Amino acid sequence: MTSAAASVEAIVRAAGPHVPLLLARVEERLAELAAGHGPILAEHAGSTIAAGGKRLRPLLVLLAAGPDAACADDLVAAATAVELVHSATLVHDDVLDAAPLRRGLPTVWAQGGRELAVATGDLLFSRAFTELVATGSLAAVRTLSHAGSALAQGELLQRQDAWNAAVAVERYLERCELKTARLFEASCELGALAADADASTVAALGAFGRRIGLAFQLLDDVLDVMGDAARTGKHRGTDLLDGTVTLPLILARERDAELAAVDLRTIVTPEQASELCERIEATGAPVEATAHALAIVAEAKDELAALALALQDGQLLALDLVADSVVDRRA
Amino acid sequence: MTSAAASVEAIVRAAGPHVPLLLARVEERLAELAAGHGPILAEHAGSTIAAGGKRLRPLLVLLAAGPDAACADDLVAAATAVELVHSATLVHDDVLDAAPLRRGLPTVWAQGGRELAVATGDLLFSRAFTELVATGSLAAVRTLSHAGSALAQGELLQRQDAWNAAVAVERYLERCELKTARLFEASCELGALAADADASTVAALGAFGRRIGLAFQLLDDVLDVMGDAARTGKHRGTDLLDGTVTLPLILARERDAELAAVDLRTIVTPEQASELCERIEATGAPVEATAHALAIVAEAKDELAALALALQDGQLLALDLVADSVVDRRA
Repeated sequence: MTSAAASVEAIVRAAGPHVPLLLARVEERLAELAAGHGPILAEHAGSTIAAGGKRLRPLLVLLAAGPDAACADDLVAAATAVELVHSATLVHDDVLDAAPLRRGLPTVWAQGGRELAVATGDLLFSRAFTELVATGSLAAVRTLSHAGSALAQGELLQRQDAWNAAVAVERYLERCELKTARLFEASCELGALAADADASTVAALGAFGRRIGLAFQLLDDVLDVMGDAARTGKHRGTDLLDGTVTLPLILARERDAELAAVDLRTIVTPEQASELCERIEATGAPVEATAHALAIVAEAKDELAALALALQDGQLLALDLVADSVVDRRA
Repeated sequence: MTSAAASVEAIVRAAGPHVPLLLARVEERLAELAAGHGPILAEHAGSTIAAGGKRLRPLLVLLAAGPDAACADDLVAAATAVELVHSATLVHDDVLDAAPLRRGLPTVWAQGGRELAVATGDLLFSRAFTELVATGSLAAVRTLSHAGSALAQGELLQRQDAWNAAVAVERYLERCELKTARLFEASCELGALAADADASTVAALGAFGRRIGLAFQLLDDVLDVMGDAARTGKHRGTDLLDGTVTLPLILARERDAELAAVDLRTIVTPEQASELCERIEATGAPVEATAHALAIVAEAKDELAALALALQDGQLLALDLVADSVVDRRA
């Protein structure tokens, strides 16, 4: 299917030439902020921001706004703010996980220790709000603060459920909503707000973002079971090693009684984790989890189609391609 | 001197009966927020918030606003928000310092581990912004976001300067400004903003808050050298043990060449730290640091007197008593 080959380039082509220009301004602003708070932040936050990946959240802000956003500066500020919040959570997650590498580069935690990582994350988080306040939109600040609370609650839930393989599917999905989907939702809402969209369009674009965020997390969790280190930058079964129970394991336990009896605390080496991943894979659970994620993406795309009248053609196509790109990650 | 005996009760008496009523509403709101985000937050953030001490920052918000604040709800929200930010930094500081106790109670870090403490701090911080957004004041959100950034920058500076006994006085003062004074400043500004004060009054009240915040931190650092565990809830020389170089040591090194030659990394037991504190005390440096703090408080009080026309009588007296109460901590 051609949609599975959707790349950021194709998305940008569909959305129009304003998108790469604005994305470049977001990059510039992120680099400015990383450099503008002294040498420690420049070194540590700079590397995290630079290693920040595909800029999916800023892209969603820009695409949800469409080509007619009232003020390009405000749009760039909103897109920068969501990426700062995302970067802050990456830095803090690496403290939580004591992760040595992210995307093949040393984490702030590994380079500077937990003290530096906690303070760096806090600074990125605060700066996100400073950035957004400059747009003059209280609705935007409210949206981001709710997403920030959700992220932290998701982390708390994850810690509470750690090592508990018997966790329910609903609880897992709630955690994914909080940890990931809500910032995707906020990204779309911030874009729509910047374009002065009406309340129902803001809500519909938010719902679209939330769904693809949820699918994104589900597929990320499948990748951790199926993927190889070269592609994901992590070893297979990383989640299992830090006690994070995800959908593939939850579903696999229903199908394999011996697997259900495994105490996760006995899984301590990458080899044991890899073996457990093979066992999960053998039950077909990752395929089922993937199918669940694809169904959510399909719902998101339907929701988008219903918005046809409120959106520009290129905007609709570009958002549709973003939904495809989330699916594409599993390939 | 009677002013040294200033207590919160005296402050409240001077300010008028609206202050204890509003403070009670702040307590209620803090308890609500701690309880309203699931059992983990209730347990951990709840204890941090409850152990939060004298509520000096919310008190400053209320006093800076005076008796004629436009909307009590907004004032309570602002006072709650500064205390949430303060609580968030306490929770994160305890991760940074790996502190087992705060005010004699186990820290979130000690009870739940660093993962929980990082996420709990993040949640309190996000909630602060959600709380403040409800007031509808972008200026208020901007003020708090700047203070939040300053706090994190102060932490970064502290980590950068850790174990460096040769740090300059100016650099130490900059760190105190960022770590402590800026949130005191923001507290006064938020109160003034809630009372629709004119820009020069907002700035003057902010400057007052900043000075007493700076003095507060200086005296806190003196207490760490001079104080005993029963009064401060910490052992003497805690700062030395985690490599935090403060004014007493900086000044003492200028007076005692042998002390200047001590490598802080060799100070690893409470006994060694206590011995070094005695040595610092013997140089007279803590007395000089205290005098410096008292001079800053005197400047703050002068600044306040200059505001006489813009403030109510009781408000002026109450703020003056707060300045005294900061000095009183050393007694």
